[in-house]
Formats: sequence, structure tokens, C-alpha cells
Amino acid sequence: MGATAGLTEVVLYDTLVNYLVSMARTVEGAMNRALDAIVSLENPRTSVLPGEVFLLEPRINEMEIVIDEHAIRLLRRGSFSDDEMRLIVAALKITNDLERIGDIAVNLAERVVSLREMQGAQIPEELAPMASAVRAMVSKSLGALIFRNVEMATQVLESDDVVDQYRDRIFEKLLQHMTQEPKLVSPGMQFILATRHLERIADHATNIAEDIIFWVRGLDVRHGRGLEVRPSQSEQTDSAPAPDSAITENSHVLHSGVTPACNTERA
Amino acid sequence: MGATAGLTEVVLYDTLVNYLVSMARTVEGAMNRALDAIVSLENPRTSVLPGEVFLLEPRINEMEIVIDEHAIRLLRRGSFSDDEMRLIVAALKITNDLERIGDIAVNLAERVVSLREMQGAQIPEELAPMASAVRAMVSKSLGALIFRNVEMATQVLESDDVVDQYRDRIFEKLLQHMTQEPKLVSPGMQFILATRHLERIADHATNIAEDIIFWVRGLDVRHGRGLEVRPSQSEQTDSAPAPDSAITENSHVLHSGVTPACNTERA
Repeated sequence: MGATAGLTEVVLYDTLVNYLVSMARTVEGAMNRALDAIVSLENPRTSVLPGEVFLLEPRINEMEIVIDEHAIRLLRRGSFSDDEMRLIVAALKITNDLERIGDIAVNLAERVVSLREMQGAQIPEELAPMASAVRAMVSKSLGALIFRNVEMATQVLESDDVVDQYRDRIFEKLLQHMTQEPKLVSPGMQFILATRHLERIADHATNIAEDIIFWVRGLDVRHGRGLEVRPSQSEQTDSAPAPDSAITENSHVLHSGVTPACNTERA
Repeated sequence: MGATAGLTEVVLYDTLVNYLVSMARTVEGAMNRALDAIVSLENPRTSVLPGEVFLLEPRINEMEIVIDEHAIRLLRRGSFSDDEMRLIVAALKITNDLERIGDIAVNLAERVVSLREMQGAQIPEELAPMASAVRAMVSKSLGALIFRNVEMATQVLESDDVVDQYRDRIFEKLLQHMTQEPKLVSPGMQFILATRHLERIADHATNIAEDIIFWVRGLDVRHGRGLEVRPSQSEQTDSAPAPDSAITENSHVLHSGVTPACNTERA
């Protein structure tokens, strides 16, 4: 926290963070309902969950607008410390990602409604562990937000690959079943779309974790930058943001892993 | 523009907007290549396009970081007008959406690589008009950014439904073909995923248009708020952002259109 203690500090940390945590909890609630609904499709007790997800969405949308307005009011006051400024910037980005997770929970709930009307919808066995991995990522990113915990945020970044692996395995299996059995085409499609929704939730959790690291550390870890820095290391010099001139010169060096060859392996 | 003319003004409008436009053009270039590649799959002349899309992605990622850093530097200087402050906030959000469009262009290019290896991949006839509609949305949101044009931005918001209709029609047709003909399952799946990518590009173009309206007008039109305000009207009182208390009380009123019934119609 910078030099401007007192009211500004209280407003920032008690209001902006509280708003963010409250929005994050609501989004997590919507997402958990959608995940519960899809991994226990046959259970009659989960049939009310999609409706609950639909009802939460407008509340989440409102929360995004209210938090953004609050952040902008704080920016208008000016004279904040670097730490406070980074929190405001992170908040503006985090609300975006939270709101999208809320949208994806709605998409998932729509999949559930469609699947409940279909005959022969068999839940892929890896869907539940995939959902658990996504749940853990969102839960950890929320924990990182509440406790300003860079280590938890770093764990979120490291979990993204696991989710992608589940997505690819489920995709391959379902595609095989659908090709062999025409009546599995419709439900299989819904499950494949569902895994894409899960993957996108994981992406947003990753973005949130990066924004929290930026807030706490002032370190930009997006797109793999600075990922080599572990929580135990406090030096940031090697992975400090590049100067403007890096737009073109450094892009290929920094992202040498991104080539046509390594991209095409995704389903 | 507010009271702080001179250097700040020049920096803001000549540098931040120029950076944004430059990033937007690069993203548009990547997206157009991906769209060209998927709507003309059989054409050997488009076979190099996916590789070009993969090469553009790291440059787009770098641009996002550079623009965000520039926006944060401007915020640190403080003492900006409301208009300038809104531009900085809009820029922080727009870079996010542009970067995601760049990611989706990569996903689309991956679909193209998969489809080129498949037998019997027949391009759905509505894919080209759907791609045109998406192209027009992105092009208009870029125009709205360059010319600070609220009318163009409003047109983007109005086009989103058309894209969703194409998505649903293509989905129904492909599902039917895939159920009848097992060898169409794999390519059909790739095309369905491609239409989801197109839909998400349209969503990001919509977000950008909303951010531009917020920048120029100070009007928050996200989630359908204030959409009834036409460019010819200058009064914003009716659709001014709600106070904090609206988080819960107003959410159902404001979004009365979002109910389980109206959400389940999406595929």
C-alpha cells in the first residue's frame, strides 16, 4: 500500500475488493450449479439447477457494471499509489472475465436442458474429473483474490494444460462413438460443446490469476511472460515488461513456442 | 476533450488511439486470413493462410501488453479529463477483446488445418455469408474506433442476432447430415466448432462497440442497457448507469428478458 492511506485505502480495499469477491462468489455459485447439473444429468434433484443459473446471470451483469463504475470513480479521484492503481486496473479486467464465466455457465445450463431432452445421452466418464479441475482453478483464483496470494494464482496458471488434455481425450472418444452410432451424434455434440465451455472457464480463471499477479506483484505474466518466476523468487528484473520497441522485435523471441507446428495439435 | 490540452492530449489521442488502431488492424488481418481459409478450403492458394495466422498471434499478444502498459502510464500521470479517462478505461478493455479475437483466429486456423486433412469435408453453404456478417461487424467496430463513430458502433450491436441465426441454422443442418452419414461426423464437428468461433468473434466485436460508445458518450450499453438510445439522441439521463443499490434490486427488472424460457432456445 502506498503513501495515500486513510479513506482512499479503506474505500479501495474494503469496497472494491469486497465487490470483486462478492461478484466472484456469485459467479462461482452459478458455475458450480451448471457443473453439478451436467455431471449428474440423470439425477432428478439437479433438474432445477439450470433455471437457477439463468436467474443469476442478470445479477452478475449488474455487478460488473457497478464494480466498473466504482473503479472509474476511484480513478477520477486520482492520487493513488502504484499498488492501488494496479488493483483498479486489475479489477476492470477481472470483472470482464467473471462476467464471461457467468455467460458460459448459462451456455452450459443450456446444454443441460438440451441433453435432458435427448435419448441415449451418456455422460463421458472424464467429464466429472474435467469439471473438478475447472472448479479447482476457479476456486483457487478466488482464493488468490481474497488472500492476495500469488502462489495460489500461479497454481491456477499451471492447471490449464490438464483441462486441455481432458478436452482432447473426451473429444477423441466421443467422436469415435458418434461415428459408430448415429443416435449418439446429438448428445455427443452437446458434450463436446460442454467441454469447450469448461475449457473457456479455465481460460478465464487463468486470466484472473494473471491479473491478480499483476495487482500484487506488478508483474505481467500474460501469454507466458514471467511464468518462470516462482513465488519464492522476489526479483522481477528478468521478466519485467518489455519497452514499446518490443512490439515487433521481441514478439517472435518471446513466443518462440507458438508456431504452426505446435498449434495444430489441438483438436 | 477536457481542460488538460497540450502534451497529454497529444499523447492520448496520437499514441493510445494509434496503438489501438494498429492492434485492431493486425487482429483484423489475422481474422480475415482465418475466414478466407475456412470459406475456401479447397482452394490451394489459401493453404498458406493458417500459418500466417499462427505467426501473427504472438505479435498481437505483445501489442496488448504494450498498450496496457501505455494506458497504465497515462493513469499514473493523473489529471486527465473525463473523456480521456474513459478512453484509457475503454482501451484496457478493448485490447482484451482484440487479443481474444486473435486467439480465436488461431482456433479457426486450427480447424482449417484439421479440415484440410479430412475426406468429404463439404463447406456449409451458409458459412460464407456468416463469415461476411462477422467480418462486417469487426470492420465496423474498427471504423467506430478510428472515427469515434457511435452510429457505426450501434450498427455492430444490432448485427449480433444475425450471426446467432446463421449459427443455429448451420448447426441444425450439419447435425442432420452427421446423423445420416457417419463419415460427415468429423468434418461436421469441425464446422460446428468453427461457427462457435465466428459467434465469439461477433461477441468480442460487440464488446468493443460497447466500449467505444462508453468512451465517446460515457454511456454504458453493456447487457442491453441504453440500447434504445439512438445516435440522434443526446440525452443520456434515462439510461445513465444505475447506482450501487441496483446490484440486486434492479437486476431482474433490467434484464427481465433473461429467463430460463428464452435462454434455452439457443442451440
